[in-house]
Amino acid sequence: MSYNRIALIGLGLIASSMSLAIKRSGSSAHVTGYARSSETRDTARRIGLCDTIYDDFAPTVHNADLVVLCVPVGVMGQVMEDIAPHLKSGCTISDVGSVKRSVIDLVQPHVPEGIHFVPAHPLAGTEHSGPKSGFAELFDSRWCLLTPNGANSIAIQNLANFWKSLGAKVEEMDPDHHDLVLAVTSHAPHLIAYTMVGVADDLKRVTNSEVINFSATGFRDFTRIAASDPTMWRDVFLSNRDATLEILGRFTEELFALQRAIRTGDGDLLHDYFSRTRSIRRGIIEAGQDTDAPDFGRIKNK
Amino acid sequence: MSYNRIALIGLGLIASSMSLAIKRSGSSAHVTGYARSSETRDTARRIGLCDTIYDDFAPTVHNADLVVLCVPVGVMGQVMEDIAPHLKSGCTISDVGSVKRSVIDLVQPHVPEGIHFVPAHPLAGTEHSGPKSGFAELFDSRWCLLTPNGANSIAIQNLANFWKSLGAKVEEMDPDHHDLVLAVTSHAPHLIAYTMVGVADDLKRVTNSEVINFSATGFRDFTRIAASDPTMWRDVFLSNRDATLEILGRFTEELFALQRAIRTGDGDLLHDYFSRTRSIRRGIIEAGQDTDAPDFGRIKNK
Repeated sequence: MSYNRIALIGLGLIASSMSLAIKRSGSSAHVTGYARSSETRDTARRIGLCDTIYDDFAPTVHNADLVVLCVPVGVMGQVMEDIAPHLKSGCTISDVGSVKRSVIDLVQPHVPEGIHFVPAHPLAGTEHSGPKSGFAELFDSRWCLLTPNGANSIAIQNLANFWKSLGAKVEEMDPDHHDLVLAVTSHAPHLIAYTMVGVADDLKRVTNSEVINFSATGFRDFTRIAASDPTMWRDVFLSNRDATLEILGRFTEELFALQRAIRTGDGDLLHDYFSRTRSIRRGIIEAGQDTDAPDFGRIKNK
Repeated sequence: MSYNRIALIGLGLIASSMSLAIKRSGSSAHVTGYARSSETRDTARRIGLCDTIYDDFAPTVHNADLVVLCVPVGVMGQVMEDIAPHLKSGCTISDVGSVKRSVIDLVQPHVPEGIHFVPAHPLAGTEHSGPKSGFAELFDSRWCLLTPNGANSIAIQNLANFWKSLGAKVEEMDPDHHDLVLAVTSHAPHLIAYTMVGVADDLKRVTNSEVINFSATGFRDFTRIAASDPTMWRDVFLSNRDATLEILGRFTEELFALQRAIRTGDGDLLHDYFSRTRSIRRGIIEAGQDTDAPDFGRIKNK
């Protein structure tokens, strides 16, 4: 069964991309959308996002077979509480939050009887945000992780098929394990990138224009990550606190070991370390999760 | 005056790109090349890099108007000593090292009277290395920083014109300031990326395939940086020790402040910090030093 009516709550990068990817899939589902800000709703209407944009929760979720919460993790519980009275019996609630344990803790208590809650996290995004940043290809070949938390197996299967129809690959995972894996592959790297960019900004001896002009040397990759949506990321760190802090602790420990090698001139340790990390890159390219084009293809695509 | 004969010592990414960019510029200069490894020399000959590849220093630099040291920073002094007896009087020696103070300290003592030493650093590269990784466009719109160290002004001007003919923008800088700026924009970010990738590799609970499969979430950008040439980077860190350690100290201090904000739940501090770093990205794009395409254009260029 595919969904006849799909409601997207929150109209940022992910929801706008979902809306475009649903249409690309050839689905005849009616897609409704809601955003808290009237400016966002106006923009969404102007660019033709979704079939109907509503000004309230009730009509947005009315009769929907699938409701997807595409709002920052920190407000998901409140949104779930607000939409709960308006849901069709038997419908599926899902989300796209980057953290799963806290979303489950916040959302589950407000899910009415007879409604299927299947948490999900599409591992896709860019440094851009807002309703105009979406594009239909965002989920192609990317993973969407479901953390079903004991949900109805047909509801799970339907949601998996839905994400596959948007181009994603789907896998199920335990929510706590999800949060640890993402702390490694996403949350800690983001905090580190934010930090390094902040340090560069602070240094008065290195003027702003030098940091910017000479950025094409590693730093600009950090600035792309550190340009991601501040509200979303604030909520991610506060919601996945323990795993993020654990990984950052490991990171600092390791960084100190490398700093010590630099201080003591231990070139062998550095060389061995750098050789090991090189092979991980190879694995990512072989898994189809990044381009092998030098410098992400930026130079030759110019 | 342009150079009639140019010698490239070391045939990695930078030298092979220079060789191709020289030809693209329409220059009629004869380009000679040398690499320590016979395998590299054979590869260079097979793919037609340079006009002549020699097996020894002496014929490579014989009669050259410009000799460019394209070897890891740690061996530049030795190479300079080896080529010194074979140089044409009045020729210019330059290099492409990522660190400038230590290169000057290592190379200058071996520069014979009547030879102009003009240190240089083209801020360009990719995560690939070796003679086959070069391409003519590598230096287009990138900066090449000269740290002339009191060299003859005509020699400086000729080298600046040469780099402009390869597509680069040229600026002069004090060597110590260069090393501090690059510690911020390149050296510290590289060590941080190496560290984060090493941490991910170490974590036994997060299996290798998970880190790789779910890398498209920030982490894969770190793996690209952490795939850079191990020998080159070992030498960079050992040669720019003080500035790198200073910036890493600042980084750690700042990281601890953000970790503390996560631990104490200070969402305002995090949100303000992340908003500030976002504006730096905008500056880099406006300065033409990176693409504004979402995710470096990886998704839509697939």
